[in-house]
Amino acid sequence: MRKVKYLVASTLDGFIARPDGSVDWLIMDGTDYRMGEFFKSIDAVLLGRKTYEFALRHSSKPEGKDKSKGVEGDTSPDSGMKNYVFSSTMKNAPDDGLEIISENAGEFVRNLKSETGKDIWLMGGGELAKSLLAENVVDEISLNVHPILLGAGLPLFPETGKQIDLELTECKSHKNGCVQVTYRVKH
Amino acid sequence: MRKVKYLVASTLDGFIARPDGSVDWLIMDGTDYRMGEFFKSIDAVLLGRKTYEFALRHSSKPEGKDKSKGVEGDTSPDSGMKNYVFSSTMKNAPDDGLEIISENAGEFVRNLKSETGKDIWLMGGGELAKSLLAENVVDEISLNVHPILLGAGLPLFPETGKQIDLELTECKSHKNGCVQVTYRVKH
Repeated sequence: MRKVKYLVASTLDGFIARPDGSVDWLIMDGTDYRMGEFFKSIDAVLLGRKTYEFALRHSSKPEGKDKSKGVEGDTSPDSGMKNYVFSSTMKNAPDDGLEIISENAGEFVRNLKSETGKDIWLMGGGELAKSLLAENVVDEISLNVHPILLGAGLPLFPETGKQIDLELTECKSHKNGCVQVTYRVKH
Repeated sequence: MRKVKYLVASTLDGFIARPDGSVDWLIMDGTDYRMGEFFKSIDAVLLGRKTYEFALRHSSKPEGKDKSKGVEGDTSPDSGMKNYVFSSTMKNAPDDGLEIISENAGEFVRNLKSETGKDIWLMGGGELAKSLLAENVVDEISLNVHPILLGAGLPLFPETGKQIDLELTECKSHKNGCVQVTYRVKH
């Protein structure tokens, strides 16, 4: 069965962005986070609406980035990646590579996992992660913890009220001070 | 100058205890967290009132623990360790090894750091850590991150609204799934 992987950069105090959504604190210094390897393992992306809008703004930057290694990766329709945006307010998908899921997120993801395909990236944000963690459809959590306390921001793990046991499968520190940790969710 | 070290066990979702204060999720399996080495480096402990009361209940357990290696360590007056409890409601210190600090926590700790002595353990809880981080008197943050999401609890880093830059100085994973990370606070 396809795995759902919540892979995201975070601060040590558990934020994925500043209160206004900005991620200027991300360290993009060429350190090999092995994102290329990760992107080869997936063919679908799950995003909340705000994360989708952020990714859209970010990917349209004229200067561009090496998307094969960026945290965001190349998840555009051109890449063959299927994007699922979870939103109760968006009505029309702006392009073919995008599908809007407006209800029953857990059930949708459960069905998606049972289909044939590669693994599935839960890109975020925290609210979608909260919902899917509560629905017990997330299989892996992989954080790139940045050496900073923001003091406020958008939470990586909004409170679910539910205990989830994990198994550490990988831990690697980088010269730039980031710590990558990966956990298997014990279902 | 003496350093203030915020050393604490936490969950991956940034809690130091369940909502009721319990820490039954702590892994005390004999893994060498090198706490003995840490306790040799300190001679003073900073605690919030609730953390003090918890430590008091815990240390009075009849079955006892190997305190030289326990997360709490031997911070009793007998050990020669000086304990400072920060509280606006406690009036009388119940024993000689204890001093109650009822106001100006930041100023008190700044003065303490300038005195002669070993380093100082900021044991917690989160509210005291928040206050001392905001006052810029914390020099080191050391977490033993446990492989669990509690979904709710007492936060490790209550929001300060203040950005604090860190330098990763150590990262070590243990067989039991805990990840120890230590950071220097960039003042």
